[in-house]
Amino acid sequence: MPHAFILNLVSERAPKPPQLHQAAHGLFYHLLSLVSPEMSAAVHAAKRVPFTLVARQERGGIRLRVTLLDDELFAPLLSVLLTGASGWRLGQGEYRIGQVLATPEGHWRAGFTSWSEIADASPRSTLALEFLTPTVFATSGQSGKRMYTPVPETRLVLGGLLRSYQTFSPHPYTEAEAEVLSEIFADACSVTRLNIHTETHLAGKRPYTGFVGKVAWGLYSENSDVRQALGRMAALVFYSGIGTKTPYGMGQVALLG
Amino acid sequence: MPHAFILNLVSERAPKPPQLHQAAHGLFYHLLSLVSPEMSAAVHAAKRVPFTLVARQERGGIRLRVTLLDDELFAPLLSVLLTGASGWRLGQGEYRIGQVLATPEGHWRAGFTSWSEIADASPRSTLALEFLTPTVFATSGQSGKRMYTPVPETRLVLGGLLRSYQTFSPHPYTEAEAEVLSEIFADACSVTRLNIHTETHLAGKRPYTGFVGKVAWGLYSENSDVRQALGRMAALVFYSGIGTKTPYGMGQVALLG
Repeated sequence: MPHAFILNLVSERAPKPPQLHQAAHGLFYHLLSLVSPEMSAAVHAAKRVPFTLVARQERGGIRLRVTLLDDELFAPLLSVLLTGASGWRLGQGEYRIGQVLATPEGHWRAGFTSWSEIADASPRSTLALEFLTPTVFATSGQSGKRMYTPVPETRLVLGGLLRSYQTFSPHPYTEAEAEVLSEIFADACSVTRLNIHTETHLAGKRPYTGFVGKVAWGLYSENSDVRQALGRMAALVFYSGIGTKTPYGMGQVALLG
Repeated sequence: MPHAFILNLVSERAPKPPQLHQAAHGLFYHLLSLVSPEMSAAVHAAKRVPFTLVARQERGGIRLRVTLLDDELFAPLLSVLLTGASGWRLGQGEYRIGQVLATPEGHWRAGFTSWSEIADASPRSTLALEFLTPTVFATSGQSGKRMYTPVPETRLVLGGLLRSYQTFSPHPYTEAEAEVLSEIFADACSVTRLNIHTETHLAGKRPYTGFVGKVAWGLYSENSDVRQALGRMAALVFYSGIGTKTPYGMGQVALLG
């Protein structure tokens, strides 16, 4: 069951970490290693990591939003967090847990949904997203050279969501179905409205350029499987984010409609 | 020799045309037919039309910017324009010619460049463009269905410029060279900065959604042929515009650097 929760870390005196997302990322893996070193190693080694993480410096502390795509992670992680409720190290500072908000009543960016609820999401023919934090896609061309594309190309946005769905849903599409869906998304779904600009974001040790703002798509296909798939992608985005460096605060996305 | 010129059409009493670009387009073809009916028919039938046209309602008249990519068009068109200097019909109104500005001294969006000057343009590894009027790409997927994409995807922007170059330059790349260039542009050129939003534009009888704003690219290739090609595309953009519906005011682009 995908989860999104907000963690308020409190400290009266901690200095502001110069590399906030690098530090938050370190804390997250520390927590995982307390659950079990094997789990931490497995998450680290995953080709698509099963979490996203965004941090924000606030007065008196740091607010983290963590999303988990892997059913196994939430309960043990939360119990580690709540048992060792003080003395968490983030950068050079020590923090204690102020609040854990895990439901939409507690915070609009928190919540949980089962994979079957995502699979049963209402079909849709439009998708409107707000990219809250800089979003960028890592692509490699025929030359194999890695490139970063801060542009909401339909095939990158929907192709990435579909790959997340395939990786983490316990009931993925068959490979052949996923390939057809990818093609139809690229062929029959297009941007109808956008308002975006680029910003740089320190994701780990180096800055990346991503886009923020609003983008809307329309799907020009009457096919009910495709519309259902778009509904699933829309339901997933709250948990999966979009693009690369989502464990370092990039690609946080809200569904507008 | 590609030309861009500004035409100020003056009328004291003409009503504002409800479909300005449709009306301007009609006047342009009327002018062409006065040069010769064969020329008008040939331009109309061309797969890529050799001109762009944007119109703006101003106080006391209409300002047109016309660009011509075909060497044969400028001189006869200008002589028709200057001999019949009054009584041009645009929509329901009659206009006379106020000014023709054909050099950058007269207007920043006017000028001319020979195809060999474009071919000799300085190599470059960056490209920054301002999309002055809504820009959209017509694409068709594997299904063959026509789609409109108001997103500055690198392969659409540079691929389109390259096809214009191939169509109109008297010294185009070979087909094999053009194919390799297209691939390298898509693989090794990426957006480094952007600030864009969509607007609708009445291009002919129906509205299209395009993007306006600024986009910058970086080329991650040391290959001197590719850098030279990017220089040529940059030199062409003033005359060719970008995307579809450029004869109806869309895709007007300025080179920023």
